[in-house]
Order: sequence, then C-alpha cells, then structure tokens
Amino acid sequence: MLGSPPVAIIMGSQSDWATMRNAAETLHALGVAYDARIVSAHRTPDRLVSFAKGAREAGFKVVIAGAGGAAHLPGMTAAMTSLPVFGVPVESKALSGQDSLLSIVQMPAGIPVGTLAIGRAGAVNAALLAAAVLALTDAGLAERLDAWRDRQTASVGERPDPSQA
Amino acid sequence: MLGSPPVAIIMGSQSDWATMRNAAETLHALGVAYDARIVSAHRTPDRLVSFAKGAREAGFKVVIAGAGGAAHLPGMTAAMTSLPVFGVPVESKALSGQDSLLSIVQMPAGIPVGTLAIGRAGAVNAALLAAAVLALTDAGLAERLDAWRDRQTASVGERPDPSQA
Amino acid sequence: MLGSPPVAIIMGSQSDWATMRNAAETLHALGVAYDARIVSAHRTPDRLVSFAKGAREAGFKVVIAGAGGAAHLPGMTAAMTSLPVFGVPVESKALSGQDSLLSIVQMPAGIPVGTLAIGRAGAVNAALLAAAVLALTDAGLAERLDAWRDRQTASVGERPDPSQA
Amino acid sequence: MLGSPPVAIIMGSQSDWATMRNAAETLHALGVAYDARIVSAHRTPDRLVSFAKGAREAGFKVVIAGAGGAAHLPGMTAAMTSLPVFGVPVESKALSGQDSLLSIVQMPAGIPVGTLAIGRAGAVNAALLAAAVLALTDAGLAERLDAWRDRQTASVGERPDPSQA
Amino acid sequence: MLGSPPVAIIMGSQSDWATMRNAAETLHALGVAYDARIVSAHRTPDRLVSFAKGAREAGFKVVIAGAGGAAHLPGMTAAMTSLPVFGVPVESKALSGQDSLLSIVQMPAGIPVGTLAIGRAGAVNAALLAAAVLALTDAGLAERLDAWRDRQTASVGERPDPSQA
Amino acid sequence: MLGSPPVAIIMGSQSDWATMRNAAETLHALGVAYDARIVSAHRTPDRLVSFAKGAREAGFKVVIAGAGGAAHLPGMTAAMTSLPVFGVPVESKALSGQDSLLSIVQMPAGIPVGTLAIGRAGAVNAALLAAAVLALTDAGLAERLDAWRDRQTASVGERPDPSQA
Amino acid sequence: MLGSPPVAIIMGSQSDWATMRNAAETLHALGVAYDARIVSAHRTPDRLVSFAKGAREAGFKVVIAGAGGAAHLPGMTAAMTSLPVFGVPVESKALSGQDSLLSIVQMPAGIPVGTLAIGRAGAVNAALLAAAVLALTDAGLAERLDAWRDRQTASVGERPDPSQA
Amino acid sequence: MLGSPPVAIIMGSQSDWATMRNAAETLHALGVAYDARIVSAHRTPDRLVSFAKGAREAGFKVVIAGAGGAAHLPGMTAAMTSLPVFGVPVESKALSGQDSLLSIVQMPAGIPVGTLAIGRAGAVNAALLAAAVLALTDAGLAERLDAWRDRQTASVGERPDPSQA
Repeated sequence: MLGSPPVAIIMGSQSDWATMRNAAETLHALGVAYDARIVSAHRTPDRLVSFAKGAREAGFKVVIAGAGGAAHLPGMTAAMTSLPVFGVPVESKALSGQDSLLSIVQMPAGIPVGTLAIGRAGAVNAALLAAAVLALTDAGLAERLDAWRDRQTASVGERPDPSQA
Repeated sequence: MLGSPPVAIIMGSQSDWATMRNAAETLHALGVAYDARIVSAHRTPDRLVSFAKGAREAGFKVVIAGAGGAAHLPGMTAAMTSLPVFGVPVESKALSGQDSLLSIVQMPAGIPVGTLAIGRAGAVNAALLAAAVLALTDAGLAERLDAWRDRQTASVGERPDPSQA
Repeated sequence: MLGSPPVAIIMGSQSDWATMRNAAETLHALGVAYDARIVSAHRTPDRLVSFAKGAREAGFKVVIAGAGGAAHLPGMTAAMTSLPVFGVPVESKALSGQDSLLSIVQMPAGIPVGTLAIGRAGAVNAALLAAAVLALTDAGLAERLDAWRDRQTASVGERPDPSQA
Repeated sequence: MLGSPPVAIIMGSQSDWATMRNAAETLHALGVAYDARIVSAHRTPDRLVSFAKGAREAGFKVVIAGAGGAAHLPGMTAAMTSLPVFGVPVESKALSGQDSLLSIVQMPAGIPVGTLAIGRAGAVNAALLAAAVLALTDAGLAERLDAWRDRQTASVGERPDPSQA
Repeated sequence: MLGSPPVAIIMGSQSDWATMRNAAETLHALGVAYDARIVSAHRTPDRLVSFAKGAREAGFKVVIAGAGGAAHLPGMTAAMTSLPVFGVPVESKALSGQDSLLSIVQMPAGIPVGTLAIGRAGAVNAALLAAAVLALTDAGLAERLDAWRDRQTASVGERPDPSQA
Repeated sequence: MLGSPPVAIIMGSQSDWATMRNAAETLHALGVAYDARIVSAHRTPDRLVSFAKGAREAGFKVVIAGAGGAAHLPGMTAAMTSLPVFGVPVESKALSGQDSLLSIVQMPAGIPVGTLAIGRAGAVNAALLAAAVLALTDAGLAERLDAWRDRQTASVGERPDPSQA
Repeated sequence: MLGSPPVAIIMGSQSDWATMRNAAETLHALGVAYDARIVSAHRTPDRLVSFAKGAREAGFKVVIAGAGGAAHLPGMTAAMTSLPVFGVPVESKALSGQDSLLSIVQMPAGIPVGTLAIGRAGAVNAALLAAAVLALTDAGLAERLDAWRDRQTASVGERPDPSQA
Repeated sequence: MLGSPPVAIIMGSQSDWATMRNAAETLHALGVAYDARIVSAHRTPDRLVSFAKGAREAGFKVVIAGAGGAAHLPGMTAAMTSLPVFGVPVESKALSGQDSLLSIVQMPAGIPVGTLAIGRAGAVNAALLAAAVLALTDAGLAERLDAWRDRQTASVGERPDPSQA
C-alpha cells in the first residue's frame, strides 16, 4: 500500500496514550511513520481480530502494543500475526504495572512478545527497537538511529549538576 | 440443544488438564454435565473466537477457563461472551502461578472474570461456584450441593491424627 | 419475600464504600436491585453469621463482598452460604491491595469465592458478573447487559485523542 | 476449671498438623498442657463460632491458630474472643506461605493476631510466646522457660562443624 | 517497683512515633499505663542491651517494639528477655513496610516476636494484644477491654453512608 | 560476509545453555543459521565489548542474549550495538528468575531490550521473534515461519487426553 | 597521583544525584575527598570502560556506584576493576527500587558488589562503608568515623517527642 | 596480635555453614587467613555483643556475616563495630532468602552493611570483596586477587558445550 506506515502503535484505551505517546514521539524524531490506534482486546475483540489478522496485509512491519493490568492486547495480537510484536506494560494503579509486565512478558512458547520496561521508558524503547528492526533494511534510518544514539551519548554530562538536584 | 451440558471447561493446553480435571471430577460428583475442551488463546485464536462467541447459543450457562503464565484465555473468553466466566490460574513453573493469577484477575472494568485460587483448589472451587450458579434455578442441584458441603463439614475430624503427620 | 433484591453488596467498613459504590452504580445502571450493608467479619462477627446464614432465605441470589487487608468477609460469607459469592479486594494502604487479593482469592478447595480485580474495576466487574448470573434466567436483564456491553464497545474511540493525554 | 489446659492449639485441617505439632511438642517440653483441635473456619464455621465464643469460659488462656492460604482461622477466632490469639502461617503450596502470612498478619485495627513466622519456626515460637504469657503469673513456668532458653543458648557451638555441612 | 507501668513501648527512632503513638493512645484509652522510649537497635545498641536485659526487673510485663526497614529492634529485644514481645512493622519509604514486616516476623525457632500489621493498625493492635495478655490476671482490665470491643462493634453502621464516600 | 549467520545467541555461562539451546533448536527448525557463544558481561567484559561493538560488522542482524540473576548481558550488549537485542531471563536458583527478568526488562529509555519470558519458553520465543524480524525481508523464511505456526496450531488437540494427565 | 581523591562516586544519570549527593555530603562530613561523576553504563559505555579500567591507576581506592531500574553500573564497574565497589539502588518510579536492588545485589559468584539500602539511606551508608574501609589504614579517619558514630548515638533522644509526631 | 587473621566469618547457625563455607574456601584460595565462628544474634546475644565490640581489638579488619530469615546478625554486628561488615543472605526455606536479603540490606542511614547475593554466590563474593579491601594495602594479595580473576576470565569457554547441557 502506497505510503502505508511501517509501524502500528496500538493501545488498550485512551488513558494509555499518556504512556504510548512517547513511542509516537520517538518514532517521529527518527523519521519513522506510524499509525496510532485504540484497540481494546477486552472491549473491542472484533477490532482486535480484524487489526491483528490484517496487519501484515495493511503494510505494517512492526506492531507496538501497550496495555495495563491483565494486559492481553500484545499477546493476542501476536497470536494472530507473525509480524514482530513489541509490548509496553502500562503502569497500573494498584500494582504499579507488575500485573501488566507479567501479563505481557510471560507468554508461552510459540507466540513471542518482545517486552519493554514498565511505563514511559518502555514506550520510548519500543519505538527504538522497532526502528532498529526497520533499520536492518533502511540505511537512512540506520544512520538516523545511530545519530540519535550519538546525540544521546553526547548529552550525558561529565559531572552531576548540583543546581538540578 | 437437547442434552447440551451447562458447563464448559476450557483450558489452554493438554498440560493444564492435570489441574482442570479437578473441576471435571467435582462437577461429576455433583451430577453436573460438562464439556471439556482445549482452547488455546495464543495457539488457536480462531477456535477461541468461535468457542466464545458461540458458547451461549451452544447451550452453555457457565464457562470455566484455566490457563497459566500470561493467561489470556479466561479474559478473552469473557470479552466475547456475556455468560459468567470463572478463571483458574494454573501453577506456572518459574513464578508458581503468580503470573497466571495476575493475568486473570486484574481485568479492566467492563469484562469480569471470577477468579479462583491457583492450582487444584481453584479448579475444584470453579466447579463448586458454577454449581452454585446453576443451583439458583435447579432445586435438585441445590440439594446435591448442600449435601456435598454437609459431607465436607462432617469429614473434618475433631482432633489432629498424629499418625498422619 | 416480595420485592427482595437479588443482590447483596456487603463490605467490611464504611471506608470500603468508596470502592463498592461502583458495584452499586453498575447494578443500578443495569436495572438490578441490590441491598448494600456494612458487615464486618472482625468487628461484627454475629452480624456476619446472621447475614450469611440467612442470605438465601432473605431472597438474595448473589452476594458481592468487598474488604481490604486481611480480608475475611468474602470467604467467611462463602463458608456459611452456598449462594455464589463474588469478592472485591479493596486497595489497602501499605500493600496496595496485594494482601486483600491473596486473602480473598486463595480459598481452600471446598469454599469458592469468585474474585475480581483490586479496587474500582473489581467492584464494577462484580456487579457485571452478578448480572451475568441473574441474566441466565432473566431475558430482560440479558438484553440490558448485552446493550450495556455494546455501548461499552461503541464508546471505544478509533484513535487516541492527543488533547486528552 | 480443674485440669483444663491453658493453651488451645487449633488448625484448619489435618494437613496443618505436620506444622502445628511443633507447637504441641514445644509446649510439652515446657510442661504446658494444651488441647489440639481441628477447627476449619471455612468447612466448619459453626465449630469455629462455638470454639471461639466459648474459649474463655472453657478455661483457655491463650489460643494458637495455624492455617494456610486464605488463612481466616486466626483472625476470625480473634474476632470472637478477647483472649490473646497467636497465628501461625502454614506454608502453602503455590505461594510458599506468603498468602498465609498476609491473610493472618494484616488484620484491621481493633482485632489483633500476634503473628509468627511461616511454618515450623512459627509453630515453635507460638508455643514459646504462649508460655511467655503464662509465665507472667506462673513462676515455675518462668523458670522452665528460662532454662529452656539457657539450654538453647548453650547448644550453639562456637565453631561451624565442617563434618555437618 | 511501685507504680511501674506494665507495658513498654519502644521504637527505633523519633519518626516511628507517628505510628507508635497509636499504641500509646489505645493503651491510654484502656487505662493501661505504659512507658514510651526510643531505643535504636542500630544507633544505640548499648541502650538496647540495657533495656532488654532489664525489662523484667524494671517491672514490665509486655514489650511493644516498632521499627521500619531492616527492623531488628523487636527481634533483638526478644533475644534478651523472655517477656512477651509484640512487633509493629513501621511503613518504610521504598518498600511500604514489606521489609519491616519480614524483618520482624520471620524470626528463627527459639525467639518469638508476635507480629502485628504494618503501620497504624498494627500499633493499635499491639496495644490491644498487650491488654489482652494483662487482662488474663486483671479482671478490671478484662472488663474495660470487653467494653472497648463492644463499643467498637456498636460503632459499625448498618448501611454505608453515601455522604461519606 | 559470505555465510555469516544472521543470528547471534550469546549467554553468560555454560550453565545457561540448558535454557538457550531451545533458542538454537528453534532457529534450526526454522532454517535460520546462528552462532552460539558464551559472553560473560561480568567475567569477560572485554569479550562483551568486542562482541557487541563488532556484531553489526560481523554480519549479525539480531542478537539473542540469555542471562540469569543480576543479568547485565542483554542490556550491555544493547548499549554497544544498535542491532535489535532480545533478552531471555534464565531462571535463577533463589529467586526463580524474578531477578533475571527485572534486570533485563527494566532498561532506561534510550537502550531497548525486547524481553521474553523466563526460561525455556523465553528462549523458544526469542528465536521466533528473531525469525519474525528476518522474515520481513526473507519470503522463504516468512513461509517457513507461517508453516511452523500452522503446525503448532494444528497440534493442539480438541479434547484433553485423560491418559496424559 | 598527588591529591587524587580516594573515593569515586559514579551514577547513571543526573537524576541520580538527588540520591547520591547524600553519599557526597557524608564523605565531606567525614573529611574524605571524593570525585563525583556521571557514568552511564547504557548511554556512555565507553566512558564506563575507561573509568572502570582506569580507576585503580587514577588513585581511587573505593568506588561508590548508584543506579536505578535495570541498574548495571555497579556490576559492570566491578567487572572491570578489582577495587571494592559499593552499589546504591536508586528508587525507581514504578517498582520503587526493587528492580534496582535485585539488579545490583544478585551478582554471580566472582564479581562482588557490596550493596546498600534503596535510596538515601543506601547512599549515606555507602559513604560510611567506604570510610570504614579507608579507616583501616588511616587512624585520623578512624577517629573521625568513630566520632561521627558517637554523635549519631548521642543524638538519639530518650523519649519520643509528641510535638514532632 | 601476631598471626591474628584479618577476616572473621560469622554465621547464625551451624546450618549456615553449607553456604558460608564458600566464603571460607574462597579466602583460602586467595591466601587470606580467616576465623569462622557461630554467633547467633538471637540465641547468643552476649556472644554477639562480645564479638562485635571486640572485633577491632582482636585484630580483625573485615567481618563477613551470614544469616537467614529475619537476619539480624550482620546489622547488629555493624551496630557495634566500625569495621567494614559484609552480609550474606542465606537462602531461607519458605521465602527463598527474600526475607534474609531485605533484613540485611535495608539498614537505616548510619549503620552500613555491604550486602551480597543470596546464597552461595553471595558467600563467594563476600570473600572476594573482603580480599579487595585487604588488597588495598597488601600488594601480594592484590596480585593474587588479580590472578584469581584472570583465571576466572580464562576459564570461560568460547562456545557452549552441548555435551554439558
């Protein structure tokens, strides 16, 4: 499909956007197009089936899925596509994302979900990992990714700045 | 459907049967018919969709779903039927069922799964809870359930038997 | 008893109402009558015995019990009635409801408590699960429940709304 | 009451005796009479009520209660007697007694259970704590308890014995 | 010693007072005299040795010890007195008192600490448990304790008050 | 480089091979060449630096890294290459891999490690995820991966086999 | 090297300074010179290698390393120097430093990191432990350290001050 | 004192020797003399006080303390000496050393214990850390320690050996 973005960012609810927007912003900074959608495994199971089964044909290369609590979205998506799926455990209220993390990472043999850290860091890193996958066959992106990482390295100060403590 | 059993027992894999057979045996002891099937949310998602969406029309009244690890079967079934779904966290190898428990019980508002204890006790109790639901409109079953519980109460010895320690 | 409500919502203390009102409001939205009471397993054990033993005769069909910390109310109620009991772990201060969850869900074989998620989501879902049980023999409620779920599905937006992040 | 033993050891099931016998043996070694009974909060709630409400009049001074999983026996006993109640979390299968511990120790303000360690050490220590309470007004027992502790101290070798590693 | 109070309340630091004052206030309400002191196992080990070894001779009957984090005060006190010692895990910053709880409750066989809940509830209950011990030989206190508990029972409302949610 | 395998499987020690061989066998079944090496972040830091910095030039496309306990190998590899790195938490003795999981998955924003489940399932899935990445530009592999998954789906029996319980 | 400070304080990011400044201030109070630097294991791996391999030659005697989340800095530093390394788990957002603690303390046999408590207390204590090491061959420092500890002991009040609760 | 060994290895009970012998053997391999003793904080508090207060004068430079469960030995030793104290959490039965770890590592500001990993790895590493401290002023030991680490590095094979899996 012409111009179809390579990365889908899906999330279980509107409230997950506060976390997942970090994935979107990181992809944007790397010049990687994406499509962000709400797909609730529990409240919109038909949409989930339709999205996951059609993801490859729709032109997506990588799926980033964020969810919290009994987080079934990443694993169920992975069950219905053989595209790489990266999962972001959204921080939950009572258990601080420990439930989200275990629900996403402890997949049985056969259906993989590459899981990132709980919360914002995980969303940023899901984008970087998706970019690393795409960069395997996109020299321009590989350069932008390396430049991004070089800037990151350069941004680390030598000494702690007491005025910021 | 004539003779259709009221309870479906589904589980994610053959290995879950060692746990879920306790549900089957308890239902059998109470004279409640059941149908036991393997439905893997991850490895057979189509079977899951087909089972869950057709469960009510197939004549089931209650679904008992057991799964381990990132246990998505109970919650995904509940997402596609409004029948009561009871979940049994199967004990997992590394995390002893803590992952199974959180993946089943921490469902978001809107899609309920009544969750029982990890392992064998949970499977027995899922059957008892299903029977309690059916007994609301089945006086014979209500009597059998009460008799079962009375026998259970009567079976508790007064004193610990040192010879069994 | 004429007009006796089918659902009892009990809770261990006044402070649990902030959580359990979500069960009440959900039942109200579904047109299911309920009776909400404070029954403390620890501070009012006689009231607990009286309530649990009389629940069936009082006309209740389902009991929803919420409690926090060493939460004994759901399990002790289930010990004294064969009605279906659904437990809601109220979020506790120090341990965020992990103690409440384990105290409710880890019941021994023989006495089931169908346990929902910690906190508000669990209270909403206990109501939905109670409604699902009652809907097995109440076609009107079954329709209302399906409509509620359809509205829920329809309320999920297609795209995250950046203005709400 | 003539000859009535001062300590009641109660436990939720026969299988708890393997743990609770350590309380019995420790009391025996200290010359403290006890009565050991099975009282299941869940399977024999009437026995629980009868025991707990009658414990003081029966002549007991201290109650030691052991239970596992969603362990409600110590707390419910404490709810129905103002005698000191000491709880022993019995090691559970899946969660190694973490559920037992939290279900016993996290009692709400108003109903205390003095909780000991998970498993055998907790059972021994419940006996020692009961003895310490009784020794407040029993000089002979106080002497025996001090002697027991002195022997314990004396039994600690100075050097690790490599032949026992 | 004439007029020596029967209960010692010790705590590891000034900051524990916010928790332990609940023990003091409960004892006061029950008419039980107490002595509140700061004894840091780590920062004032000599004071700890002196207090613990002299506690019985000083006339104390029961020791309530509160501490947080790697909470060694209750266990070390119990190591140096055969008086009953009740431990209160003070809520810690990072781990919410989980470290305090395990450091206090998981004592080895031989040295018991009756452990209460994390935080305020535990402090109140340590006082109630101390009173229950003293009430074994103080009929007046037994009456006051029963009256306290009766008032507690009476204070539990029948219905949740929506205006307080 | 001619014949250079696309996947590197590295692990912290010989003992990790019992887990990581499952990654190797899965890649082999999918017809994906790999190179398996022991690279200890802690005992052979120079080898780690040399491997990680040279991984891309050596022709690797994806790195699978398995380690247990304070598992630093996946994260440190990811710090020194922008290739996709997938981490496998090896089950540790005392903490059953909970330490391995957190040490691998909780990476800070900027350096991603796609983390799989603890133990054997994680190793199998790391291989499947690596294959999914490579299949994005290898139609033959994509077909083999889909066939592998179809066989997996087909292998799930309809009914639990009681003879295997 | 003339005037080279004996203690290096390194941390993974500027944000760790809020914790690690407590190590710096404690060393300052004890008259121990230190050098504080930001060394990110993940974002500046070359700086890490350079620092750790050169630490001994640079004149450092002890390294204090603080990091949060998947905290690899202390362990990787220890992998590249045989100087004593003390690790401070910085409190992380979602998991409150439980990930930091396990990532630092669960080092495999062969590469030690002496780990302190999570957060501020750990930073203070890393400084005290470093001072204790240096004091083994610095009588003046040994005196200052003892004086510091004496002042600490003297600062513990005898009674809780109700006005501060 | 002539010939007084620089390292004391203390442990709470004979059963800890199975773990702590790994510290002894590692020190022996490095040519560092040690003295191994049983010192139970709980069962022999006088021995603890005497050991800890006299440790410096006895000629010890470093103390290695291993204990399990509510492990108070390392922290209480550190409270009574300003020598460096390194703690080894011995694996406990029910909680696998999680209680031991938190009881040792979560020391309050002011009294440091450098904590190593749970179990055997922690015992080996406590010895290596003690050696690293002593090596600061013992060039021969520094050489032996470096040689030990070089041998360790050299012992890591390049490839996993399938015959050992």
